[in-house]
Amino acid sequence: MKGKLYGIGVGPGDPELLTLKAKRIIEEADVVAVPVKKPGELSVALEIAKQSAVIPEEKIREIEFTMNKDKAKREACRKKAAGEVMDLLEEGKTIAMLTLGDIGIYSTYAYVHKIIVKAGYDVEMISGIPSFCAGASKANISLTEGNEGLGVIPSLRGIDQVEKALDVFDNLVIMKVGNHVEEVYELLESKGLAENGIVVSNVGMEDEYVGPLLPEREYGYFTTIIVKKEL
Amino acid sequence: MKGKLYGIGVGPGDPELLTLKAKRIIEEADVVAVPVKKPGELSVALEIAKQSAVIPEEKIREIEFTMNKDKAKREACRKKAAGEVMDLLEEGKTIAMLTLGDIGIYSTYAYVHKIIVKAGYDVEMISGIPSFCAGASKANISLTEGNEGLGVIPSLRGIDQVEKALDVFDNLVIMKVGNHVEEVYELLESKGLAENGIVVSNVGMEDEYVGPLLPEREYGYFTTIIVKKEL
Repeated sequence: MKGKLYGIGVGPGDPELLTLKAKRIIEEADVVAVPVKKPGELSVALEIAKQSAVIPEEKIREIEFTMNKDKAKREACRKKAAGEVMDLLEEGKTIAMLTLGDIGIYSTYAYVHKIIVKAGYDVEMISGIPSFCAGASKANISLTEGNEGLGVIPSLRGIDQVEKALDVFDNLVIMKVGNHVEEVYELLESKGLAENGIVVSNVGMEDEYVGPLLPEREYGYFTTIIVKKEL
Repeated sequence: MKGKLYGIGVGPGDPELLTLKAKRIIEEADVVAVPVKKPGELSVALEIAKQSAVIPEEKIREIEFTMNKDKAKREACRKKAAGEVMDLLEEGKTIAMLTLGDIGIYSTYAYVHKIIVKAGYDVEMISGIPSFCAGASKANISLTEGNEGLGVIPSLRGIDQVEKALDVFDNLVIMKVGNHVEEVYELLESKGLAENGIVVSNVGMEDEYVGPLLPEREYGYFTTIIVKKEL
């Protein structure tokens, strides 16, 4: 009998935000597949899962997803990754592939999911807590209430797209802000929303910051800005 | 010493989608507060939590949130609810207040959260799996990949708002579609997206439906449509 692949979201960082289902399936799986950029590299998703689930070293299997700038190389690497997973499925293995946050939101897993579904294997996605939900909870605010809308957009998409999204939605999560903070601040200021940005940055790290958007401050890579027109 | 209030998202329905943290805090709490529309009414959030966490009957405390059409009556009821919670906090109780899905997305809890935070009490929000994440997992699709954006909007907001959101985002979750299915279908058709709507309806119930948007079909109240411009 062929195996089954579970794509599993382990949540944004706090090991206790793993779901009961994620913990059970990870512990029951024959193989815990871990996406890495390079072999031997530390996987944050695995480090999180290990703190709440029992994962023997011999079950862990690294799967490489290169971040090479060459699109063809990235695609080839994804095909190879899917092939490795399908080989394990042919052997009848149950595989739990881990991803940070939710399994359906900007996950590396998505790149192999489609290929493996198309090939006809048994696949199930297990949701995890998205980083922006945990970020809002950390900031003690709701993302959306009543009949309000919510937008989620990476700042890499371009500031004009962020502006369009801001015009449509009462609440906007701008992800991966990194070095676009100043641009975002200027946009908010131009809309009279300079005081409506809440920053959630490097949660759980030494330089964690959760508070109002201050343009003169430096923020880390894992920076999310939540804009709420009504605070 | 004063008590502490935890707002807890119990996820969208599957009791195994409770987080380890939600389970622990619910079990440790002195009081499990359950929002209800009327005293004695069944609480779906409580029914979910009970299947994964041990909750003795004597810990359960109903908190009424009326759905009365009169805004003043709703507001008065929310103030009374916050007052009841604050009385318990004054007694030094640890309170876990439950909500379906995530604690920061369309949650009843939000109505008392602000009042109680403003009054200076110790409050913490614990994220849960949002229904739209679980819906996408159920449909075996990603919500958003690469640099794509994601919009979430209740159809009650009006079809013109849904259209605006659709113009800005590659992926759109239309929540609480209920009897607006036809309108949404017509909108998608006019944009050449008739085949890009995926319905997730009444998950876990007898008439569960997960599949393409068929306009001639009847859908239940808990219907979400996920539109993906690129399937």
